[in-house]
Amino acid sequence: MVTVPADFRAQFPVLEGLSYLNAGTEGPLPRAAADAVRERIELELTSGRCGASYIEAVRDLARRLREEYARVLGSPPEEVALTGSTTDGVNTVLSGLDFRPGDEIVTSDEEHPGLLAPLGRLQRLHRVNVRVVPFTELAGALSPATRLVACSHVSWVSGRVVDHEALSQTGVPVLLDAAQGIGAVPVDVKALGCAFYAGSGQKWLCGPEGSGSLYVHPDWLEQLTVPWPGYGSLADAKQALTSPPAEGAARLDHGFPPGMRSAWALASLAVLESADWEWVHRRAAELAARLADQLAERGLEVGARGRSTLVSFKAEDVDAEVLRLAEAGFVVRSIPSHGYVRVSVGAWSSEDELDRLAALAVG
Amino acid sequence: MVTVPADFRAQFPVLEGLSYLNAGTEGPLPRAAADAVRERIELELTSGRCGASYIEAVRDLARRLREEYARVLGSPPEEVALTGSTTDGVNTVLSGLDFRPGDEIVTSDEEHPGLLAPLGRLQRLHRVNVRVVPFTELAGALSPATRLVACSHVSWVSGRVVDHEALSQTGVPVLLDAAQGIGAVPVDVKALGCAFYAGSGQKWLCGPEGSGSLYVHPDWLEQLTVPWPGYGSLADAKQALTSPPAEGAARLDHGFPPGMRSAWALASLAVLESADWEWVHRRAAELAARLADQLAERGLEVGARGRSTLVSFKAEDVDAEVLRLAEAGFVVRSIPSHGYVRVSVGAWSSEDELDRLAALAVG
Repeated sequence: MVTVPADFRAQFPVLEGLSYLNAGTEGPLPRAAADAVRERIELELTSGRCGASYIEAVRDLARRLREEYARVLGSPPEEVALTGSTTDGVNTVLSGLDFRPGDEIVTSDEEHPGLLAPLGRLQRLHRVNVRVVPFTELAGALSPATRLVACSHVSWVSGRVVDHEALSQTGVPVLLDAAQGIGAVPVDVKALGCAFYAGSGQKWLCGPEGSGSLYVHPDWLEQLTVPWPGYGSLADAKQALTSPPAEGAARLDHGFPPGMRSAWALASLAVLESADWEWVHRRAAELAARLADQLAERGLEVGARGRSTLVSFKAEDVDAEVLRLAEAGFVVRSIPSHGYVRVSVGAWSSEDELDRLAALAVG
Repeated sequence: MVTVPADFRAQFPVLEGLSYLNAGTEGPLPRAAADAVRERIELELTSGRCGASYIEAVRDLARRLREEYARVLGSPPEEVALTGSTTDGVNTVLSGLDFRPGDEIVTSDEEHPGLLAPLGRLQRLHRVNVRVVPFTELAGALSPATRLVACSHVSWVSGRVVDHEALSQTGVPVLLDAAQGIGAVPVDVKALGCAFYAGSGQKWLCGPEGSGSLYVHPDWLEQLTVPWPGYGSLADAKQALTSPPAEGAARLDHGFPPGMRSAWALASLAVLESADWEWVHRRAAELAARLADQLAERGLEVGARGRSTLVSFKAEDVDAEVLRLAEAGFVVRSIPSHGYVRVSVGAWSSEDELDRLAALAVG
């Protein structure tokens, strides 16, 4: 399959008026996603939201969404839970594992509050020792007390990629925050060797706010209690007080998956899939690397990064720089804690807009 | 204000083709909700989902939704969290309180799996003693070990209303499952005297799947740890590991409130509010009582009920009866565990359709 960049870009209407370079926060929407939303609301409005066939159809959308996420993750669907966010996935793992006082979790100095807030809870309530080490030194920092490594697959700060090989060789289970991983870079959870992979749906997968997925390695599924149970987590809802959990990672689904959310997420995934994920990932990575080089050539200080879709550069006043770029039509964000302006480059980005950004950026 | 029943009903297109009597599962959608969804998706599609003004607008929608839920609940907005379901609210309370082995929670024999599944978790993992007693005998069943009563405001099985006065006089904190309460019957959380009130948004409030609210009495907010923390639960996201919680019940929000969800929920609430809640509640209760009388007059066995919107009647083969009624254009559901066919009557229901249902029903 040959995907023509301009044809692909044309599927995202926001790009007609804006250089939208912030998929690391939320992705641009393809026209097909909006079509799916309109179709869905018309159905719910005129046919109602009840009856066996309605519920079956909503379940079927959830089943298809689980399959599509699984395809992106490189796992069987039985190992994927449907969540509302990366944070949901992180909480599911951190609340579902049985931590004891004195247990240690190692994390990095480039983590998002969505990972740190749940870690802080464990630290406060269960006296777990959360140790923060540099993102590039995770594997070497483990101790015999380390029960879990919890860190980003791709740093939201710098776009660096975690050394998953070194981590998986330690034998300690790893929870990867996939917010800047899934959809942004090629993912194969089996090759990554992680126990848990928690991602967002609204960023690089261009899905709705309040969507996401959690991969759980089958060896770890039975080690997790279901921390947020509901109707769908039970094998037998008629015996809800005593029922064993439902089969597979679906027991960890976060609430009954809304039909609207599934329909939208599926439509966005279909656009990316039909362009060919390999092409999507390669083009985004190449454009991002090209932008990083251009910025560096202009003398800007670009953060050390990996083969990812994020490019961060230092600026004296990051918020002023973000505002200045916004006025010129570029949507980027600041990471004030690290003094960075962060650019999210997608396969939908154009060489032309990135050239203009590189020429315009001021450190 | 005078609301004309036919004018009110005309705002719900599904009612043109169906006798949709299942708001206890999911409510009918008003046309205005679909308009809000279309407007919202157009905005996200063409203007993008990033930048300070976008985030501010999404926050503003969440703020307005919290205010509207608070108005329905009779509480200040600071005491309301935005959740994805009744189950989310229940889990927030049951995971946020500090239960010890041997603590007792009293619940009833008419509870939904969305309440029972979280109770089952406490029973299994924390060796909490969950005692199940008849719905009408809750207050008399408490013991010195009872730490919490967790039960329905309105039984999803029978439509009976809990004796909240007797419960509040016991002094034991009460968590009410409000799935069949909020939007269905007049609610004043202060008069109910409950510590926690967990409701759904997609049922009697006609909102999106994946919406809901949790009221927390201010005396109880500080007794709850934040069991599912994220970016929004923190007072200072820059110090995410050690930050104290955000102000008010918003710390318990379940994920960052999606703009689409808020916009849809608000549009539906505005329709109900503009008809006048007092009228909505009174009309629904009167129509339901009238239906119950008609069914009883025809010799059917109607379950003991309260002033609510649910009417349950016994049938020999409940699923066959639901199917038979569906073929005649009536959307109702079965409660097989209790041998009931359950009818959800709303202010949007018509006398005519309820007359026809009463004539058609077979026990």
